[in-house]
Amino acid sequence: MSKTAVEKIFSEKSGTDSKSGDYIVANVDYVMANDITAPIAIDAFNELGMKPKSDKIIIIPDHFVPPKDINSAKQYKKSKDFALENGTWFYDIGHGGVCHQVMMEKGFAAPGRLIAGADSHTNTYGALSAISTGIGSTEAGVIFATGKMWFKIPETIKINLTGKPGKGVEGKDIILHVLSKIKNGGAAYKCMEFSGNIKYIDINERMTMANMTTEAGAKCSFFDTDEKTIEYLNQRNTGSYKIVKSDENADFSQTFNIDMNNIEPSIAIPNSPDNVRIASAIHEKIDQAYIGSCTNGRIEDIRKAAAILKGRKVNRNVRLMVVPASQEVYNQALREGLINTIVEAGGYFSGTTCGACLGGYMGVLGPDEVCISSTNRNFIGRMGDKTSKVYLANPSIVASSAILGRIGTPEEI
Amino acid sequence: MSKTAVEKIFSEKSGTDSKSGDYIVANVDYVMANDITAPIAIDAFNELGMKPKSDKIIIIPDHFVPPKDINSAKQYKKSKDFALENGTWFYDIGHGGVCHQVMMEKGFAAPGRLIAGADSHTNTYGALSAISTGIGSTEAGVIFATGKMWFKIPETIKINLTGKPGKGVEGKDIILHVLSKIKNGGAAYKCMEFSGNIKYIDINERMTMANMTTEAGAKCSFFDTDEKTIEYLNQRNTGSYKIVKSDENADFSQTFNIDMNNIEPSIAIPNSPDNVRIASAIHEKIDQAYIGSCTNGRIEDIRKAAAILKGRKVNRNVRLMVVPASQEVYNQALREGLINTIVEAGGYFSGTTCGACLGGYMGVLGPDEVCISSTNRNFIGRMGDKTSKVYLANPSIVASSAILGRIGTPEEI
Repeated sequence: MSKTAVEKIFSEKSGTDSKSGDYIVANVDYVMANDITAPIAIDAFNELGMKPKSDKIIIIPDHFVPPKDINSAKQYKKSKDFALENGTWFYDIGHGGVCHQVMMEKGFAAPGRLIAGADSHTNTYGALSAISTGIGSTEAGVIFATGKMWFKIPETIKINLTGKPGKGVEGKDIILHVLSKIKNGGAAYKCMEFSGNIKYIDINERMTMANMTTEAGAKCSFFDTDEKTIEYLNQRNTGSYKIVKSDENADFSQTFNIDMNNIEPSIAIPNSPDNVRIASAIHEKIDQAYIGSCTNGRIEDIRKAAAILKGRKVNRNVRLMVVPASQEVYNQALREGLINTIVEAGGYFSGTTCGACLGGYMGVLGPDEVCISSTNRNFIGRMGDKTSKVYLANPSIVASSAILGRIGTPEEI
Repeated sequence: MSKTAVEKIFSEKSGTDSKSGDYIVANVDYVMANDITAPIAIDAFNELGMKPKSDKIIIIPDHFVPPKDINSAKQYKKSKDFALENGTWFYDIGHGGVCHQVMMEKGFAAPGRLIAGADSHTNTYGALSAISTGIGSTEAGVIFATGKMWFKIPETIKINLTGKPGKGVEGKDIILHVLSKIKNGGAAYKCMEFSGNIKYIDINERMTMANMTTEAGAKCSFFDTDEKTIEYLNQRNTGSYKIVKSDENADFSQTFNIDMNNIEPSIAIPNSPDNVRIASAIHEKIDQAYIGSCTNGRIEDIRKAAAILKGRKVNRNVRLMVVPASQEVYNQALREGLINTIVEAGGYFSGTTCGACLGGYMGVLGPDEVCISSTNRNFIGRMGDKTSKVYLANPSIVASSAILGRIGTPEEI
């Protein structure tokens, strides 16, 4: 029987021959939790009175670290104490970063693996041909104890990419375009599989795209393994993995044909990631420009921002925040002189944290403030006060807007 | 009549011939407020219905910026909006830093000036022979409108420094030693004037000392103007100033003779800055090492930390936080390669903020956590949970402790 990649992986992980719609119990390769979700998972785990599957558990404080207040200090400490007592994987302040970035960098994400994460953007590792999905914190606690979880195997939507991205079109623009077609919830409980001309899309951009499949309601995402995947994996401490691919005649629930030639640099305007416009049509005045997060806080993103900022100055009415997605990204930006370029332009370069992406730290918006952001969500109040407004775009557009003092594109600076 | 420096400055600023104990109304050269105190000051100012003395007003967001939550975003925005609408001095995120450091760097602090600041550590500018003092936020709002404030002219305690600081003794150790003699409240409503062998004490260390006179309850502090002062001022956009000095036979309320030869590297143990021990006697295990704040977050402090961290690794049970006191300090640390040294050792280098010094941001302590910190206060709960403990020391000791995993000195690494 022909199968999709997701059907194959779930079949293998459950020791069954299953298809979409089937309920199975699967062995999870890794379960990840952060400083917000780990404490809840730990409570659930403790109720079970079992020993932890420590080699499968990864705890990465990222949301409110370094702790911003006493409550976040307690969450961080509870997570850390559990990790150290039980010998789980743990990436401390100064060594880790935003959980999804760390999961990629440290080799946990790899083809054919099944990873559950107590964070909604766990979908990200589909960029490396893994099935990864966001789960509840309580469910994570059960996996801490059992190494297993039940799943309903999702159907797969095929996103068939043709053509080639034009000038200024990044992974962010492609996924915004896709979201404008699929819409919020349009992929609810489904796998979004990207196929076709993915050779034009680098791994960091695939991560951005996989990350934002969450905004369509997708259960997970999937990119085929190719040379770019292998090159990325070879640079990491990945261990063995198994390359899996959907069969040609597999049963896809839906197919979207996306001609990348037709995609223009894009912006999601308030208050939804699927509310997409052509970037050159938007000129709103901004108070903050934000580059960071698991969506677009990688070294490639910071390079793009720095290339635009070099020798220029951030508009005096704008605060530009650049928040690297991991310590590795930070250190690389430092080595390449990118931090220097950004602070010389008047930007604020912070240590790594999830930051203001979720309205919790390091650049939260005040009443009526307008922000252009490289992050993944622009819901009402997502980055701060409920009267603030967030526009989502790629890092080049965010950096250009910081210089212009209003939303604008690299062509305008 | 012989006068102390503080009597001379208050006499001039009030157009009177006054002495300690007199009540006067003085022209204030500058009034400073931060993101916590400016909003309250603005409300007080608005009640008066007067025009602001904009050229005297300096607003520097530092405590909870970049905003850590919606409330801090509102405070920041209210401060910024007021500053921009009224054309006051304003140092935004990415351009300023911790208020007292910025007041020094930007040339507001200078000999003979009278500066009021809505922050308790405004005493700092005594390092540059200014009279500066912390005031209430409401009082700051009145100065916004009038440029004046009433004062009771303080008596002066003379701290006569003899001898020369030995190896490893920094300004922090000198002021901790002085605090151990004067005790909390021992200089309540008085000026602490440092005289004698101040030639051995650099301006950055004088700032540390002046800063911590607040912990003795002092109204203000004062160092004589010397070559080091002039050199510092010449590097800044200071404008004109007037050098003032206490008369030889001025009426000091008390004199402390401190032989700097007898001072050893010191630590203030919980829960008071005057609870001072010899550093080599303390070996407590730590969870966090913190270098930053208006007390010891300057480039010289970061240089000292980096010299110790170079080629070494932070103990894995410790998080080392380095939080530069201003964007200028940040940029200089970047140019000198100090950030690189710190992150290679495993430290977390953040953007500039008051941070965890006041338990409000960027490294707040959880229950029972122990921190060694270069900051100014170790009261119960000052840096986080009320069960956490804070030890105060100079940056060299903090960095050494980060490596050792317990409190220790440079000699031990």
